[in-house]
Amino acid sequence: MGQTGGRRVRRVDAQANRGRILDVAEEVFGKGGESASTEEVARLAGVGIATVFRHFPTKAALLQAVLVRRFDRLREQAEALLDTTDPGTAFFDFYRHLVADAATKIAIGEALLDAGGDSDGEAAQASNGLRRAVGALLRQAQQAGAVRDDVELPEVYALLVATSRAAAHTDLDDEVKARALAIVFDGLAPQPVTRSG
Amino acid sequence: MGQTGGRRVRRVDAQANRGRILDVAEEVFGKGGESASTEEVARLAGVGIATVFRHFPTKAALLQAVLVRRFDRLREQAEALLDTTDPGTAFFDFYRHLVADAATKIAIGEALLDAGGDSDGEAAQASNGLRRAVGALLRQAQQAGAVRDDVELPEVYALLVATSRAAAHTDLDDEVKARALAIVFDGLAPQPVTRSG
Repeated sequence: MGQTGGRRVRRVDAQANRGRILDVAEEVFGKGGESASTEEVARLAGVGIATVFRHFPTKAALLQAVLVRRFDRLREQAEALLDTTDPGTAFFDFYRHLVADAATKIAIGEALLDAGGDSDGEAAQASNGLRRAVGALLRQAQQAGAVRDDVELPEVYALLVATSRAAAHTDLDDEVKARALAIVFDGLAPQPVTRSG
Repeated sequence: MGQTGGRRVRRVDAQANRGRILDVAEEVFGKGGESASTEEVARLAGVGIATVFRHFPTKAALLQAVLVRRFDRLREQAEALLDTTDPGTAFFDFYRHLVADAATKIAIGEALLDAGGDSDGEAAQASNGLRRAVGALLRQAQQAGAVRDDVELPEVYALLVATSRAAAHTDLDDEVKARALAIVFDGLAPQPVTRSG
């Protein structure tokens, strides 16, 4: 193996390290709590702290990258549902999936703010990408008649964010969370008569 | 006026001061923001800072008293609706009222936590009193057939808290908040068929 090959191997290793650091950081910071630290991420990823900082110069940069990857993954999952044969199930299942995912995302977002990170940066862009994908799922479900057609993305997303934040509070039990979501879903279903003015 | 009369006057004055301090504190801390302080409360109430601290030994004690009074007032408003002739309107109007009230309550609650206050104390008791009163309004609306009878207070209150917190975020415009609430209200209305499982 010549020098070029060696460099390629190092690049592949670096890429693998970067991915492992992000995986571990997502796990560690996603749980929330005081003990989460960049040092713990390095230890669990099996790399030195210097390696972490070579990839991510600051804790905020690391957390931002974790959030961006998470939003991008969710957006890709939403987009993959855009050619489904059952748009209603796709929409409501994905809504439920986002709510279930929320606690981790909120914990990482709070760690980012604590680390002095900027919530207006790349993470906000990635978050907007997810929002657009949910909008496409909503329209698809409306076209299929599974969601009432007099609602629009802003209020649906506001409810999604509201129920996600509520679900992230661990003092609610799962049954109550599911029943609260069922009320919202019934409100989103096509309505027999217009009640609200 | 003898000494006893003088003491009574002082007691009445003290009571008036206490009420004015609470009014002003509710106004000042209810707006949120960094500038809210006990000093500002004293200034706007037209009393010395020593008078504030004679009534409320700590900032946390002041904020706790503000929150308790606010919860008690809301509970009394709810209880006053318990002999209404239109239980459905009473329930949904009061729900809307609580959501509209939320930003102030949340700002005061956050100031209480920042001041090292305990959210498990008297404020939590007063908050539970409000919750029970909302439960009574809910049952009354269910008995009148205005709210579906297969929902229970835990999920309804979880949604109330979730939509209140969402509404307290000023980046949502009023139209979107109203439309989001309308979805929840439609979900709470008697359903033609059972959709959610």
